[in-house]
Amino acid sequence: MLDALSGIVDLERAASVSLYRQLYTQLRDAILNGHLPAGTRIPASRSMAVQLGVARNTVLAALEQLAAEGYLETRQGAGTVVSGQLRRGLMRAARREPDAPPPDYSLSRSADRMAMITRATPDGENPRAFMPGIPDLESFPRDLWARLLRRASHELEDSALAYGGTWGLPRLRAALSDHLREMRGVQADPEQIIVTSSAQGALDLLARAMLDPQDKVWVEDPGYLGARAAFSGTGATLVPVPVDKDGLNPAGNHPRPRLIYVTPSHQYPTGILMPLARRLELLECASRHGAFIIEDDYDSEFQFQGRPVAALQGLDASGRVLYIGTFSKILQPGIRVGYAVVPPALAEPLRSLQRNSGHIAPGVVQLALAKFIEEGHLRAHVRRTCALYEERQDALVSALEENFGTRMRVNRPAGGMQLVAELPPETDDVALARSYGERGIVARPLSQLTLGDHARSGLLMGYAGYPVKDIREAVAACRDIARI
Amino acid sequence: MLDALSGIVDLERAASVSLYRQLYTQLRDAILNGHLPAGTRIPASRSMAVQLGVARNTVLAALEQLAAEGYLETRQGAGTVVSGQLRRGLMRAARREPDAPPPDYSLSRSADRMAMITRATPDGENPRAFMPGIPDLESFPRDLWARLLRRASHELEDSALAYGGTWGLPRLRAALSDHLREMRGVQADPEQIIVTSSAQGALDLLARAMLDPQDKVWVEDPGYLGARAAFSGTGATLVPVPVDKDGLNPAGNHPRPRLIYVTPSHQYPTGILMPLARRLELLECASRHGAFIIEDDYDSEFQFQGRPVAALQGLDASGRVLYIGTFSKILQPGIRVGYAVVPPALAEPLRSLQRNSGHIAPGVVQLALAKFIEEGHLRAHVRRTCALYEERQDALVSALEENFGTRMRVNRPAGGMQLVAELPPETDDVALARSYGERGIVARPLSQLTLGDHARSGLLMGYAGYPVKDIREAVAACRDIARI
Repeated sequence: MLDALSGIVDLERAASVSLYRQLYTQLRDAILNGHLPAGTRIPASRSMAVQLGVARNTVLAALEQLAAEGYLETRQGAGTVVSGQLRRGLMRAARREPDAPPPDYSLSRSADRMAMITRATPDGENPRAFMPGIPDLESFPRDLWARLLRRASHELEDSALAYGGTWGLPRLRAALSDHLREMRGVQADPEQIIVTSSAQGALDLLARAMLDPQDKVWVEDPGYLGARAAFSGTGATLVPVPVDKDGLNPAGNHPRPRLIYVTPSHQYPTGILMPLARRLELLECASRHGAFIIEDDYDSEFQFQGRPVAALQGLDASGRVLYIGTFSKILQPGIRVGYAVVPPALAEPLRSLQRNSGHIAPGVVQLALAKFIEEGHLRAHVRRTCALYEERQDALVSALEENFGTRMRVNRPAGGMQLVAELPPETDDVALARSYGERGIVARPLSQLTLGDHARSGLLMGYAGYPVKDIREAVAACRDIARI
Repeated sequence: MLDALSGIVDLERAASVSLYRQLYTQLRDAILNGHLPAGTRIPASRSMAVQLGVARNTVLAALEQLAAEGYLETRQGAGTVVSGQLRRGLMRAARREPDAPPPDYSLSRSADRMAMITRATPDGENPRAFMPGIPDLESFPRDLWARLLRRASHELEDSALAYGGTWGLPRLRAALSDHLREMRGVQADPEQIIVTSSAQGALDLLARAMLDPQDKVWVEDPGYLGARAAFSGTGATLVPVPVDKDGLNPAGNHPRPRLIYVTPSHQYPTGILMPLARRLELLECASRHGAFIIEDDYDSEFQFQGRPVAALQGLDASGRVLYIGTFSKILQPGIRVGYAVVPPALAEPLRSLQRNSGHIAPGVVQLALAKFIEEGHLRAHVRRTCALYEERQDALVSALEENFGTRMRVNRPAGGMQLVAELPPETDDVALARSYGERGIVARPLSQLTLGDHARSGLLMGYAGYPVKDIREAVAACRDIARI
């Protein structure tokens, strides 16, 4: 009988899998594969333990588990045998049949549209010049943050440990309400705020809430891929609306929108600040069409001269602006907390939608963020990093000028974390970005952020996350890599 | 000129809004409303400050901001005046027009279907008997968790602070891979694991990935509302498949499924453990139909006798089982971290889908969880709480027997955190649950978890989160509230 196990059980002592689990799995597979047919007697645990050179308890545990799961049974007088309960045909279900057709792994149509816009960053890929959207990570106050997390973990109430207020800790929503009013001119009662797992989660939530298949959504062109991905997942039709010197231009013959997506503080990617007249035109246009506006205010806090221009949301008297903010840029993306501010009438249904879509941020991180804001650290951090980013933008602009003269033209943004360097019209920006990429320098081709047929050649370059020295070196390297 | 401001500016010193923001907002609104028409001269900052009794810097800041945003302009010889750039008609866009039709706040059809299944728990509502799905929060090792968070915050790599590996920290995926193989018999390379914000996020992700509108998805009946919400958001058709004594019974005349959702370890809500033969039938059925199975393994670790029965996923040789796990039950829901284990062919597209849907968990929580598993705390915690839950299940079962005799029949689950008490068939379980609820006792009517026309009368009662004393008292209170 033990010999019967010799071709079946083969335990590896060095494996990370426990001997118990190995023995269990090998016996189970032998039963399922028919190598140990129904009625086969299983040796006594003691002799099996000796034979296999393992502790008897290990054998006992495996046999007990197999009996509990229905693979083995005890027969009077016959000891433990392979169960006769299972039909042979059934066991085939657990076997890999070499000639079985593989499952159809194609995604649903809507998931396929979303997944097509690939943005996943490889494991362990560290930020480097000129990845856009990366804040200065060195400045992030790790010690302070660690202390706040620790305090938050101690203080969190039971309701937050369970399923209470999945749409955001009351204390964080209160802190955000004050912060947004003071710093961004946003009108937001805490009840209007929904805290989400990442700003992309907020985008996804709002897109799904507002868009039916075939609805039209106006997107800035060039514009942000993350927003396009979220919108296309709903089956809505993306209408690229060209960005002029004032941002998205609503005048023009575009199909009637249900939703208009804008980044008025620093248009993504161009960095354009939308002036007041255009903001008013946009509100008027949304009213006229019965449309809603998503204002994605991702990095507006970084305004180099004066205070940041107030958000579009604060200008909106008709309740048509849905506002999105994030901690990814003012602190760090790894925090993965974003939020939406919605008109009061939408708060209740969106909470329910959020609970059921699972875009929920951990309470401990939310409470630490509330403390971070309440204790004034957020303002101090923004002040510090804003000065740094201005210096880095200066460095990038002058390095580009020194190395490329007029062949790279920069419309210098009034703030933010990245800029667009326009290339001579005939330049293949995709090929150029690829040749930079081969040397470890990241620059996103502008044409890939453009949907319409008016693509200009250019590069999106982030500067906020990189020291002046790195910026200079990377620009010099770019000059050496390819002649433009 | 100052008199002109007297009906317009009215600063509240006690308000939480700064004087700067009040002054800015009031002047801006007066301009937008036409109370300060184009060309109106704005008094000098010094005299305005005196008049309003605020610091001159406050006035200067507000005027500068208004000028920067385009509301004011400086005219040679005339000082600062209200801008003439803005057309009167445009400014109306920022006014609340009393006769304007309100925006159409109706949700999209798919969002409406999801939001209809309301599950949001009110703010600050603390767990109490017999809310289901709540683990014992007292046992949660807050000190240890606080220390791990602190360490994690210090050690987190730059890539995790930025956008690296949004589908899960490599260390957590490695720890989960070992844990799942040892404890659950799940075959999962770290590459197959996708860490999400909450298990509901994983459900939403898989539902969207696999289901097109009109696809059929089999759901256990009675079954879990969260899963139904996620599925109905895709436009798929829910097919309720009755649960018998072995769990979901795939035999029967049901329309061909694309997806089958099961909770084989402890069927939700009945607690039934699906035996081996039924598991094999289910795999065979999925193969035959070319369908996928979602195995939601939410609280399988809590098995009172012996080890937990291995997951269905480990039996599946054909790559049709998508596995979902969560830390909500073995630790606490507030952690909001779940995960999916998917066949290798689906890993890459699902990562991209996840990045674009924003179901992303914070790196610091992920690293703390990895340490928690690696250092053996998870196993110890499960051992501790499992013993506690067995005791509490005992207490609930005997309290029900003592107080209700045979009028509440319990099919005692072999583990888990809740049970179903069946009521006499004519009992209105919704009315009964409501009368308990009025006295602060939570019990979910079984009929509300049932889709088909075979609803039985019963109550879903959670016991894991409540001390024996609370359980006894609540059951005694139930007896006094209503005669069954």
